[in-house]
Amino acid sequence: MTDFTPKREDKFSFGLWTVGWLGRDPFGEATRSPLDPVEAVHRLSDLGAHGITFHDDDLVPFGSSAEERSAVVSRFRGALDQTGLAVPMVTTNLFSHPVFKDGGFTANDRDVRRFALRKVLRNVELAAELGARTFVAWGGREGAESGAAKDVRAALDRYREAVDTVCAFIKERGYDLRLALEPKPNEPRGDILLPTVGHALAFINELEHGDIVGVNPEVGHEQMAGLNFAHGIAQALWAGKLFHIDLNGQNGIKYDQDLRFGAGDVRNAFFLVDLLENGGYEGPRHFDFKPPRTEDYDGVWASAAGCMRNYLILKERAAAFRADPQVVEAWEAARVGELSTPTLGAGESVSDLLSEELDVDAAAARGMHFERLDQLAMDHLLGVR
Amino acid sequence: MTDFTPKREDKFSFGLWTVGWLGRDPFGEATRSPLDPVEAVHRLSDLGAHGITFHDDDLVPFGSSAEERSAVVSRFRGALDQTGLAVPMVTTNLFSHPVFKDGGFTANDRDVRRFALRKVLRNVELAAELGARTFVAWGGREGAESGAAKDVRAALDRYREAVDTVCAFIKERGYDLRLALEPKPNEPRGDILLPTVGHALAFINELEHGDIVGVNPEVGHEQMAGLNFAHGIAQALWAGKLFHIDLNGQNGIKYDQDLRFGAGDVRNAFFLVDLLENGGYEGPRHFDFKPPRTEDYDGVWASAAGCMRNYLILKERAAAFRADPQVVEAWEAARVGELSTPTLGAGESVSDLLSEELDVDAAAARGMHFERLDQLAMDHLLGVR
Amino acid sequence: MTDFTPKREDKFSFGLWTVGWLGRDPFGEATRSPLDPVEAVHRLSDLGAHGITFHDDDLVPFGSSAEERSAVVSRFRGALDQTGLAVPMVTTNLFSHPVFKDGGFTANDRDVRRFALRKVLRNVELAAELGARTFVAWGGREGAESGAAKDVRAALDRYREAVDTVCAFIKERGYDLRLALEPKPNEPRGDILLPTVGHALAFINELEHGDIVGVNPEVGHEQMAGLNFAHGIAQALWAGKLFHIDLNGQNGIKYDQDLRFGAGDVRNAFFLVDLLENGGYEGPRHFDFKPPRTEDYDGVWASAAGCMRNYLILKERAAAFRADPQVVEAWEAARVGELSTPTLGAGESVSDLLSEELDVDAAAARGMHFERLDQLAMDHLLGVR
Amino acid sequence: MTDFTPKREDKFSFGLWTVGWLGRDPFGEATRSPLDPVEAVHRLSDLGAHGITFHDDDLVPFGSSAEERSAVVSRFRGALDQTGLAVPMVTTNLFSHPVFKDGGFTANDRDVRRFALRKVLRNVELAAELGARTFVAWGGREGAESGAAKDVRAALDRYREAVDTVCAFIKERGYDLRLALEPKPNEPRGDILLPTVGHALAFINELEHGDIVGVNPEVGHEQMAGLNFAHGIAQALWAGKLFHIDLNGQNGIKYDQDLRFGAGDVRNAFFLVDLLENGGYEGPRHFDFKPPRTEDYDGVWASAAGCMRNYLILKERAAAFRADPQVVEAWEAARVGELSTPTLGAGESVSDLLSEELDVDAAAARGMHFERLDQLAMDHLLGVR
Repeated sequence: MTDFTPKREDKFSFGLWTVGWLGRDPFGEATRSPLDPVEAVHRLSDLGAHGITFHDDDLVPFGSSAEERSAVVSRFRGALDQTGLAVPMVTTNLFSHPVFKDGGFTANDRDVRRFALRKVLRNVELAAELGARTFVAWGGREGAESGAAKDVRAALDRYREAVDTVCAFIKERGYDLRLALEPKPNEPRGDILLPTVGHALAFINELEHGDIVGVNPEVGHEQMAGLNFAHGIAQALWAGKLFHIDLNGQNGIKYDQDLRFGAGDVRNAFFLVDLLENGGYEGPRHFDFKPPRTEDYDGVWASAAGCMRNYLILKERAAAFRADPQVVEAWEAARVGELSTPTLGAGESVSDLLSEELDVDAAAARGMHFERLDQLAMDHLLGVR
Repeated sequence: MTDFTPKREDKFSFGLWTVGWLGRDPFGEATRSPLDPVEAVHRLSDLGAHGITFHDDDLVPFGSSAEERSAVVSRFRGALDQTGLAVPMVTTNLFSHPVFKDGGFTANDRDVRRFALRKVLRNVELAAELGARTFVAWGGREGAESGAAKDVRAALDRYREAVDTVCAFIKERGYDLRLALEPKPNEPRGDILLPTVGHALAFINELEHGDIVGVNPEVGHEQMAGLNFAHGIAQALWAGKLFHIDLNGQNGIKYDQDLRFGAGDVRNAFFLVDLLENGGYEGPRHFDFKPPRTEDYDGVWASAAGCMRNYLILKERAAAFRADPQVVEAWEAARVGELSTPTLGAGESVSDLLSEELDVDAAAARGMHFERLDQLAMDHLLGVR
Repeated sequence: MTDFTPKREDKFSFGLWTVGWLGRDPFGEATRSPLDPVEAVHRLSDLGAHGITFHDDDLVPFGSSAEERSAVVSRFRGALDQTGLAVPMVTTNLFSHPVFKDGGFTANDRDVRRFALRKVLRNVELAAELGARTFVAWGGREGAESGAAKDVRAALDRYREAVDTVCAFIKERGYDLRLALEPKPNEPRGDILLPTVGHALAFINELEHGDIVGVNPEVGHEQMAGLNFAHGIAQALWAGKLFHIDLNGQNGIKYDQDLRFGAGDVRNAFFLVDLLENGGYEGPRHFDFKPPRTEDYDGVWASAAGCMRNYLILKERAAAFRADPQVVEAWEAARVGELSTPTLGAGESVSDLLSEELDVDAAAARGMHFERLDQLAMDHLLGVR
Repeated sequence: MTDFTPKREDKFSFGLWTVGWLGRDPFGEATRSPLDPVEAVHRLSDLGAHGITFHDDDLVPFGSSAEERSAVVSRFRGALDQTGLAVPMVTTNLFSHPVFKDGGFTANDRDVRRFALRKVLRNVELAAELGARTFVAWGGREGAESGAAKDVRAALDRYREAVDTVCAFIKERGYDLRLALEPKPNEPRGDILLPTVGHALAFINELEHGDIVGVNPEVGHEQMAGLNFAHGIAQALWAGKLFHIDLNGQNGIKYDQDLRFGAGDVRNAFFLVDLLENGGYEGPRHFDFKPPRTEDYDGVWASAAGCMRNYLILKERAAAFRADPQVVEAWEAARVGELSTPTLGAGESVSDLLSEELDVDAAAARGMHFERLDQLAMDHLLGVR
């Protein structure tokens, strides 16, 4: 059996808010006491992670003075230096404080929008300072519960204005930083703007500075809309816009579960890991999960370790799947590779095409042999080949 | 009480396959006998519709000879001429025949893809001939049940190739015709490519001929992913890409119900009609529904009439909502209009913005007054004001 | 237009935790300051409510001493006396405190189960003292995230033991109190035991003291499983087990929204109100909603008033629907009443039945005329008749 | 690696309508030609199945004469005799023919209800004749799309009347046959009566002859409501009512997919197999799936073989999980077994209980260690231990 111990080069990273989640949920109080960010750095490093990420407020409490902030950052940086852990990504919290109750970039109140923008701009500076290459923007409060309360087209105008302002700032400062928008369909708002990977990609196309804007899809967020996560990732990769990714688990359409990676839809996780490993994605494998509130800190670290272990198991299985001669043969029988051949020949005209005939009944009678291929995938997933 | 009788200028149109649906479903046989397309034209005209639309195979049975096709089309055209009914949209069936079991434009089999393309190109000619301005493409079979069976990025390449080929053909022929892609998350495939309005808009941005390609969202399709339909339409309008629309009803996330418009989520339908009437959409109000298989033809026509009636009721209610001074006042209290003011002042620099301070607690304490506004919407929807 | 002002005899009641919800959600801090229970009593009374309900901890903070509790209760009782507001129902919080992180009655830890039972028993005494007739038990933490972590059959044994123990206590004390179990499919647990009205009814049948146990279904909870709420209520009424009801709004399958009643699926709400008003339900019309966290207290009271207003509007509409001669005629055309005739004649034997023949094709050809009837319902809902 | 070849004693059975499904779906025509039932018997026998099941109409076309029926049955019986395949279960089709468009047992039309009852009674005779021990009743058309069209309480009266009539007939004839109701939330009706395992169990409790009535839950049906299938099965076992089971796969809340067993939620399938193997279920492992319409008959048999293979893999994994000493240790650390200890001691009174104190903070601080246990389950599922 292979060794599934994480190594730095596996590029695993964790949000500070994940292992640091206290277990407060809509119906219950915190079940864990606060985790010192410095301890988080050390523990994650010991587990084999490559990086740690955070929202501004995770590290520096909301409302801290400049001095307090500086002290906190410097202590945190010390732990990073000591362990060699990187900060590949930073993000801004525009959703916890009551001032954001109607959103940040798209709040009806203009002064709130201005405050949100300032909060992000200041955090961009911190991100650059810590060497982050990706800045994630999750607009969790950008949305509405009532169709009367939000002019969605105006909201998209403001969203664009804000994102373009941040990008212009990044470019002006010369930061080596790209923005990644994180879609989510709902929760905490009844409906959130840019609900899926598709909506976010479409939005990016309307930006002035879309060249440095991509997406940060999260497994559970797409699955909360019943969408095939691996398909969404494929479209993001196809558009050249997969800048970052949030890995976790979700059991279908319900509240946001943030289970550890692998729990939830493990079949889709298998095809996802295969795609990430073979689809040209170079960024961090970032876990955005919540260790269940039933757990103490032993459980938290077991959960974090499980995320990485499951990724590595699936990575090994995906490689074995691809290397199996019987899979290659089944893949050919299913004509999967034939889809890479253009439909029209080089230089072929439409009139050439139109003059062709197909024996429709014969073509219809051909079996696709997908069940055999899928069962081979299943066999590899379950490790019986 | 207002008269809710449909008029031509209301621009209501119906698919031939809607009133002509025989009631065959996955678990049951047809409950109605076939409807003559000519009768459909007359009945819809009598009910006050403006147009009728069809898939090629709805009108001309699959496999018909050129002569048969010509006879059918000419008889149909006669009914159109007699009644004055228009054909604002035509679409191609790439999903019913077994040859399309793995898709049309993105079938693994190249010869099937070529056949699908021919079928569409020939139907584009018919569409132009009948004066249609929109050509809808629903890729209902473009998808997969297994992550092993479909290379999604290759599929998107082929999808783009096909759509660009069709558009080049339209331009070359000089047809006054635009393409509208219709998203759907699943059914009949386990997962369909371009599952939502967002994914379709994002795809269009990757096309060479995206200028003549937009979307044709369907109420139930977005709601099958739990998405807010009016929000999706707002984003499509915002992107200038709402070329056509399919109106119907759906009770949440389940199989595709195709209820008559108004049945299902009537609150969202209210905000949708408000948006369509006030958001600059000029196209047909097209109903893509299925009269339940419990109904005989009396029920079919009652159902079709109900679609239009519900639209007109909601249109009246939306207008009354907007005109109500108390609503105007509540809308201002909720600062809905303030979202149209840019967040930055004209010519304002980021450093100006950064130097500003907000009394965060005071801002957080302001109520949004959304519940009052939403209840006024409810009052108007229910007709109690 | 009718006056939709609530009156005591409308039997509207509200949870103290509803108008008192501070707006803390999984991603955000409280947006409102605490509401004094005494003020809640006065405000609800002024709005026309009949009753107020609470969890033990809503009124008496967890961990209070006997003296503190006594002082709080006595002050609260003073407000009840002053206003005439009733306490028709009381319930116990077995979900907020971290000690219940793995459940109350079905926690793996036996000492936690014993503590939960004590907490309920003490609260039963308070309920009886305040004249409540219904004691609700929502087992929100009785569930699991992992199939390995909970032996469901053992959990059902313990659930039964606990409920029977509480019932035996009620009987022994001679309290005029009945238990109502509140089902929910998930959130805050990944899967909750007794996930739907059906599962709860089935569970009750396994109890020793099932005679005093019924259900307290909540609109949004059933809709989180995509179920038809009015259907579930009909089955509960049919079983003689609708002891209490939680009215609110939900937009389909997603996190628990707790919108005000009427928001969400208003068509189903119409049929629900019709059923409650005509189906023999005599209990309170209890609102278990959460005024959105965007609202200040003006919004809270507007939201509470909206719950009652919407109920009264729908009640009027349902009555008009039933009284409309055209509806009566359509209802007969749809043979809705024929379903009340037994399928077998009085004293008819199976062999009589077996000897009969049906003209199947003729029977199959009969239309059901449901669309016409449904559109009449729609017309009444929207107030256009 | 273990051998996963099915054997008779594994008790695998298949519906004739599963391998015989022609691939007709709501949007497409059949892709396969009809399968001779006799060939199905031979092929399933060769694959290692133990039994075959059918709806009356699967074997004997609707409307056949007594002679035709007799000839068909006798030929089928010949194949059974030749192969030794059993018929453990038979069921009646009350959903395909248009006469059932508004239901069978609960159709508004009384003559249709009587016809449905006759159809079932005649099929009960055939079931008994072929030695079936279970008679499944799926009421797929018992439901409604409109709240106006169906009096649900009257429908439940008629449902009860019909089921009790069938049971009385079985008892009178002395057949060794039990009824199993199959729940489903929706599709083909907008909402189906008895939508979940819970609702069906609750209904059974209202029957006169409930002693011979249990449930036949289907994986995908419960998952279409987002419910945990293994939990539902546990409750059915707990109530002594798991008479039969339909195994297949489903990817969450959407149309009824009927994937082969193992595809879909394989984590839940693992816990399900563990429960079936260790929970006292003795009946057939019955597959009710649909080989995707992309497949030819090679694919059909590959798909059928995959169902059994996946069951056997999961069975082996569940056994290994239970036998692993580290799992036993983790299971104890998670106090899973402690839930089997009654909450009250033998003979303990409520006053004893009430006098006890718990150190709540200490109890709350204990971790449950579920993540570690769940990861061990994952390791066994994926075969890495």
